[in-house]
Amino acid sequence: MAGAMYGRYTQELGVYAKEEAARLRDGGGLRRVTSVRSRSAELLEYEKDPCAKCHVCTSRCQKFLISRVGEDWIFLILLGLVMALVSWVMDYAIAFCQQAQKWMYGGLDSNMLLQYLAWVTYPVVLITFSAGFTQILSPQAVGSGIPEMKTILRGVVLKEYLTFKTFVAKVIGLTCALGSGMPLGKEGPFVHVASLCAALLSKFLAALFGGLYKNELRNTEMLSAACAVGVGCCFAAPIGGVLFSIEVTSTFFAVRNYWRGFFAATFSAFIFRVLAVWNQDEETITALFKTRFRLDFPFDLQELPAFAILGIACGFGGALFVYLNRLIVECMRKQKTINKFLLRKRLVYPAMVTLIISTLTFPPGFGQFMAGQLTQHESLVALLDNRTWCRQGVAEEFDYISHSHAWKHPQVNVFITLILFIVMKFWMSAVATTMPVPCGAFMPVFLIGAAFGRLVGETMAIMFPDGIHADGSVYPIVPGGYAVVGAAALSGAVTHTVSTAVIVFELTGQISHILPVMIAVILANAVAQSLQPSLYDSIIRIKKLPYLPELGMGHHEKYNIRVEDIMVRDVRYITLSSSYREVQEVLMTGQLKTLALVESTDSMILLGSIERSQLQSLLSLQLGPTRRLDHLRRHAQDNGTHTHTLGAHTHLTSLDTMDSPPSPPCTHTHSYTSNSSNTSARHGVRFLVSVAEVILNPLPQIAEWEEQQLDEPVDFNNCKIDPAPFQLVERTSLHKTHTIFSLLGLDHAYVTSTGRLVGVVSLRELRKAIEGSVTVTGVKVRPPLASFRDSGNTTSVSEVTELHKLWNRHRGLSLPREPTPPDMEDQLDLVFLCE
Amino acid sequence: MAGAMYGRYTQELGVYAKEEAARLRDGGGLRRVTSVRSRSAELLEYEKDPCAKCHVCTSRCQKFLISRVGEDWIFLILLGLVMALVSWVMDYAIAFCQQAQKWMYGGLDSNMLLQYLAWVTYPVVLITFSAGFTQILSPQAVGSGIPEMKTILRGVVLKEYLTFKTFVAKVIGLTCALGSGMPLGKEGPFVHVASLCAALLSKFLAALFGGLYKNELRNTEMLSAACAVGVGCCFAAPIGGVLFSIEVTSTFFAVRNYWRGFFAATFSAFIFRVLAVWNQDEETITALFKTRFRLDFPFDLQELPAFAILGIACGFGGALFVYLNRLIVECMRKQKTINKFLLRKRLVYPAMVTLIISTLTFPPGFGQFMAGQLTQHESLVALLDNRTWCRQGVAEEFDYISHSHAWKHPQVNVFITLILFIVMKFWMSAVATTMPVPCGAFMPVFLIGAAFGRLVGETMAIMFPDGIHADGSVYPIVPGGYAVVGAAALSGAVTHTVSTAVIVFELTGQISHILPVMIAVILANAVAQSLQPSLYDSIIRIKKLPYLPELGMGHHEKYNIRVEDIMVRDVRYITLSSSYREVQEVLMTGQLKTLALVESTDSMILLGSIERSQLQSLLSLQLGPTRRLDHLRRHAQDNGTHTHTLGAHTHLTSLDTMDSPPSPPCTHTHSYTSNSSNTSARHGVRFLVSVAEVILNPLPQIAEWEEQQLDEPVDFNNCKIDPAPFQLVERTSLHKTHTIFSLLGLDHAYVTSTGRLVGVVSLRELRKAIEGSVTVTGVKVRPPLASFRDSGNTTSVSEVTELHKLWNRHRGLSLPREPTPPDMEDQLDLVFLCE
Repeated sequence: MAGAMYGRYTQELGVYAKEEAARLRDGGGLRRVTSVRSRSAELLEYEKDPCAKCHVCTSRCQKFLISRVGEDWIFLILLGLVMALVSWVMDYAIAFCQQAQKWMYGGLDSNMLLQYLAWVTYPVVLITFSAGFTQILSPQAVGSGIPEMKTILRGVVLKEYLTFKTFVAKVIGLTCALGSGMPLGKEGPFVHVASLCAALLSKFLAALFGGLYKNELRNTEMLSAACAVGVGCCFAAPIGGVLFSIEVTSTFFAVRNYWRGFFAATFSAFIFRVLAVWNQDEETITALFKTRFRLDFPFDLQELPAFAILGIACGFGGALFVYLNRLIVECMRKQKTINKFLLRKRLVYPAMVTLIISTLTFPPGFGQFMAGQLTQHESLVALLDNRTWCRQGVAEEFDYISHSHAWKHPQVNVFITLILFIVMKFWMSAVATTMPVPCGAFMPVFLIGAAFGRLVGETMAIMFPDGIHADGSVYPIVPGGYAVVGAAALSGAVTHTVSTAVIVFELTGQISHILPVMIAVILANAVAQSLQPSLYDSIIRIKKLPYLPELGMGHHEKYNIRVEDIMVRDVRYITLSSSYREVQEVLMTGQLKTLALVESTDSMILLGSIERSQLQSLLSLQLGPTRRLDHLRRHAQDNGTHTHTLGAHTHLTSLDTMDSPPSPPCTHTHSYTSNSSNTSARHGVRFLVSVAEVILNPLPQIAEWEEQQLDEPVDFNNCKIDPAPFQLVERTSLHKTHTIFSLLGLDHAYVTSTGRLVGVVSLRELRKAIEGSVTVTGVKVRPPLASFRDSGNTTSVSEVTELHKLWNRHRGLSLPREPTPPDMEDQLDLVFLCE
Repeated sequence: MAGAMYGRYTQELGVYAKEEAARLRDGGGLRRVTSVRSRSAELLEYEKDPCAKCHVCTSRCQKFLISRVGEDWIFLILLGLVMALVSWVMDYAIAFCQQAQKWMYGGLDSNMLLQYLAWVTYPVVLITFSAGFTQILSPQAVGSGIPEMKTILRGVVLKEYLTFKTFVAKVIGLTCALGSGMPLGKEGPFVHVASLCAALLSKFLAALFGGLYKNELRNTEMLSAACAVGVGCCFAAPIGGVLFSIEVTSTFFAVRNYWRGFFAATFSAFIFRVLAVWNQDEETITALFKTRFRLDFPFDLQELPAFAILGIACGFGGALFVYLNRLIVECMRKQKTINKFLLRKRLVYPAMVTLIISTLTFPPGFGQFMAGQLTQHESLVALLDNRTWCRQGVAEEFDYISHSHAWKHPQVNVFITLILFIVMKFWMSAVATTMPVPCGAFMPVFLIGAAFGRLVGETMAIMFPDGIHADGSVYPIVPGGYAVVGAAALSGAVTHTVSTAVIVFELTGQISHILPVMIAVILANAVAQSLQPSLYDSIIRIKKLPYLPELGMGHHEKYNIRVEDIMVRDVRYITLSSSYREVQEVLMTGQLKTLALVESTDSMILLGSIERSQLQSLLSLQLGPTRRLDHLRRHAQDNGTHTHTLGAHTHLTSLDTMDSPPSPPCTHTHSYTSNSSNTSARHGVRFLVSVAEVILNPLPQIAEWEEQQLDEPVDFNNCKIDPAPFQLVERTSLHKTHTIFSLLGLDHAYVTSTGRLVGVVSLRELRKAIEGSVTVTGVKVRPPLASFRDSGNTTSVSEVTELHKLWNRHRGLSLPREPTPPDMEDQLDLVFLCE
């Protein structure tokens, strides 16, 4: 047993020595990054830097903090500038791609087959390239990015989602994907691109100026501003961008961070539109999809029921879209044969989907019935047009602008065109967004909503050709207004946001339809939220991202679940009198990022929590190369045997000058690192290789020494301990636990009973509990202990609480009631909270 | 000593008996309301109701919670409806008042003196009535109400601010104040009115249906929605209303409550505007101050610097306004003779101010130079006009609409008029808002901003008569656009919000100037926030409301303050072995709402906290009338002496049937209360009077019995204990403490050191610390112990932590370093957080 342990251990130490050598070469420190950190831990970090300096020199700290505000502004301006440029260049490239397709298609009008081949091949090549490029460079760039950002802003660090590779893959992949003309959106990926940009900018500035830009809380603040920038410069909608990003990514929002988003998004939207002016695309700064509805009488009061119905219908449509999207993904996964084939040939699926979609939109073919030749941008401009397309059921006076004629078909009514457009685009968008390319669903949904609104509007225009105003004056109905309302309502329903209303105002540059839009968006949200999760939450669930789901409105059974039902009772802990051996065992078995520190196994009183990495470094230091060599040297001096360790020893003596006297671990390692890298990195590497040699050739006295060392009690001096980890009590309800976890961004919380550690709840348990209790399939999953507790609670037994037991013990009195059976005592608990 | 105690105690019991009798008469329970409750305590309550039912009957609980969501909608609809009606009726009444003044003034145009008297008397009477009425009915109705709502939403219950009296006083007082034509606003008070309305509606529905409407967390959610409704139905600006109310009242915002505000504000704005349509004021639903700027070219890119300068100027103006407003209030307070006089004659000040202001605006007098005859509404409509008032320096083509001619004076340039208007209105508004009437400052500031913007716009129009577009096409400058920008920027600067931008879009019904508005608002905010607090924070400071100030950006010295510097070390606590006498003493000396429960005086390990009221009822029950009479009866039976207690005893025997056997205190009291009120309230009162007699005639055996009872250890069974009160450690920085207090809405937090209670920090200490460290007067207030700690920290002594001491004690080892002097040990602390 001991031998096996020993072997494993020395092996680990060998690995350690190699790692250390690598680290020395890189010149990096010992600090390890935990992949999940709670917001409170970040707060800790946030204040650590300034504080550490404060103690040394207050004036330096003041300068540091004053400069911080200034640097914030500079950072946000830089971010806005870069994103505006990226957005503008990308739009330009996309427009160029689409123009190229049109040229090819137009130039080949002599031969239908060639025309078809050109029409189809172009997007297939682009999408396949996009999928392949993304797959090779960074698979994390696939998809929207909003779900990932939501998870990251929740406090879970998904490191690989914020790398330079992902940035490149996302930008190039997105440009190709959108250039192909598939029904894909730019918004979601742009949120991701902006966050990537912020993260990279932070890293870049940290490398240049250091200090502040390394702070994690600050990075979170900046990421949340970046999300606003992403939406803001995609649609030139600063206010809507800020609100949308808050709604989509946050659970609790700090109002003091509000200005960051507003400032950065405004600046970015401004630059984005100024570039268009400088490029002579526009005469001045205007909205992206400017409408020209009449101002004096935008809509009649009696049209409001129609708007409300439109909103409700969009709510159902939005829920259907989310459902359809999930269904497709799950179907693909379940079908094992398809799945296997697709896994092997990753590019076949997007190519196939693109082929089908582009075949169906081929203008001389089926595309002629659904305005297939128009790009998304052109379609939207046409749909938001303030002129009525049909009067008296006939599509007349309809050919005066370039885009609208696509909607007119000599044989087919404009209504048929619209309905075909809506139905085809609906499933096409749902399918297209499942392709493994960087793409969003907001814009396609927005477009479908606009088409649906236009359909309702045109119907209204036919039903009431002279408007429905009671007085003499004739105010004809504006179908474009319905299109605006429909766009906002459907996109709001799919994303579960109300800020699409603001986005639509900023996109169209008109706010005259504010009340219909608000009413429709709220109704659509009410319907969609009661039927399906939002598209982003749905993707989070599909991708199994470590995110805490929202507690729904109607999920009342959560009130019946308590922490004791979901907590892990077998907590890994260390006591004040633990030996290094115990620490080692705990480290090897548990997986949690922090470990509980209790007074003793008897009392179990929680004293604090220690990060895993801290314990690892404690252990490494106890058994680390320095002490090991120290021991060897002493041993050698005592015994005079130089046989095996000769090579190492010569190095040792040469390193004598570098070895500082025993000092606290962290400082020691750091000074050591800097020393060796200063004097000679090569020398250090050689030293460590020799250390590895020593370790990998286990001597009997070394083994003995190790055993001795492991039996020593742990020295907690200078070990970083969090003395106030978050605590819950066993009867805390799931609802309260959820609120606290979301509010504080916790990763885990200890469950205590009058100071005694009884369990631990992590994000994982909480998520399981919430998802388990959601009755999606109609079967309610009861937590394992809930039924037992329910019956136990009705008896008077439950009133004997831990505290009261403690109190009774304290006073040396026996329990006034009948003693509880020993196997029930575990379930009994504090009644304070539910008296 | 014991005698004095005894006397005091029996006196208190007499008071208790009387109170108990009063309570029996009212039929109320024993539950007392603590005036400050933390949000976590509310969360506790929130889930208590459903849970309590869940255990009994799950299906009932489900129905209960399903109905909750439905009731939310109904509540919000009701709230929106009522507020829309109130807003509309109030607007109607105000318009009528102002029309009446105009009629009087117009009818008397033969005699200048009479005209003057009519012009002046009318507002003086209205304002005096408003001030008097408010003073008599409810002085809490004075002023804006937003600062109070901010405090209430922070978790501090200001009960008297949410009563029916205040509602009546506020609505009538506000109508009169606004009807007088003084430069006062409707927005702030309307936030208060809407909150009052929500609170009263809650109470009303609680009385009707009970249960849910009594929940405090729910009430907070509803209050925050009500604030949005207040702004929304005042300006018909639902989105701006929601955002403004969030910015003005919240620190951390829960996104899941977002929809409430949006729904209620939209509904309310809708009804508010529909009423106008039904009343034939409008043809359809439109914006309140509809503008008609051209859509195709709203502004040129080269005008942006002018907009930016306007924004910066507005920032300075906003800061000046806040400063001026505070200066006036402080001057009035400092001047003792004025102050005394004003305190005696409370109505003199408003009357005087009104007299001065209305004299200055008298149209045939000075008013002719500052458009004195226009109401706020008319002025604003004129200022937002899309036509240019002056061309080539001469005010021509300027008389085609009714309102604008007021700005034109035959002798004086329109610029002079505008400048006079701005300067006069500026100080008038600052003075008028200090009057003790219900009034806000938003609208006057908005108006001044619009006038300033118009001034800049007209200047631009003169400088560039043909616009500044480089190409051939002529796009003249639109001064109305500048007015919009100025209005948003100045009101944003005064209130420190960016959502005034959204409000201005909704007010004008046009969003074409979005970029200039956003740029100006952000710049104005940046300037104003660095110079002065917001108007509402300024009022909070003046009124000394219990609100936690924000930590400013530049207040870096806060990083140097730790909890140990500000905490109260002399914590009131109870131990598990405390006697009732100790509880009594603790209750008599401390003032905190909750008391700490520790294991023992030696260990000081914090076990939880108990509400003061819980302890009071524990004490009352130990020495309460029931047990007292029990004892008396037993004593009487034992001794057979009936002399003194005869009267009481006859009652006692008659009450024998009502006395239930000894049972847990709460249940006991409740059943007792209900029994007696059921059988005969009169009987109960008689009984209690007799009890009081018994108590007030202290017998020697009663005194002896009391002493005995007081020496008994406390029975904590069935006492509601919060087992997880919030804990901080001594080295937690002020910054982190502030964040946690704001995030969780805490009232106080215990400071522990490895489980040992060492201090307590309440909102009061935190506020003092923050305000003390703000260097307003240029002198930095150092916390008392900061300097000591600074020097202590540089020595190695500080590394000996409490935990390490505990650890050392635990292992029975002596400290490896030199022992610390005993008087320093108090200051030493955990180094974990600031390694």
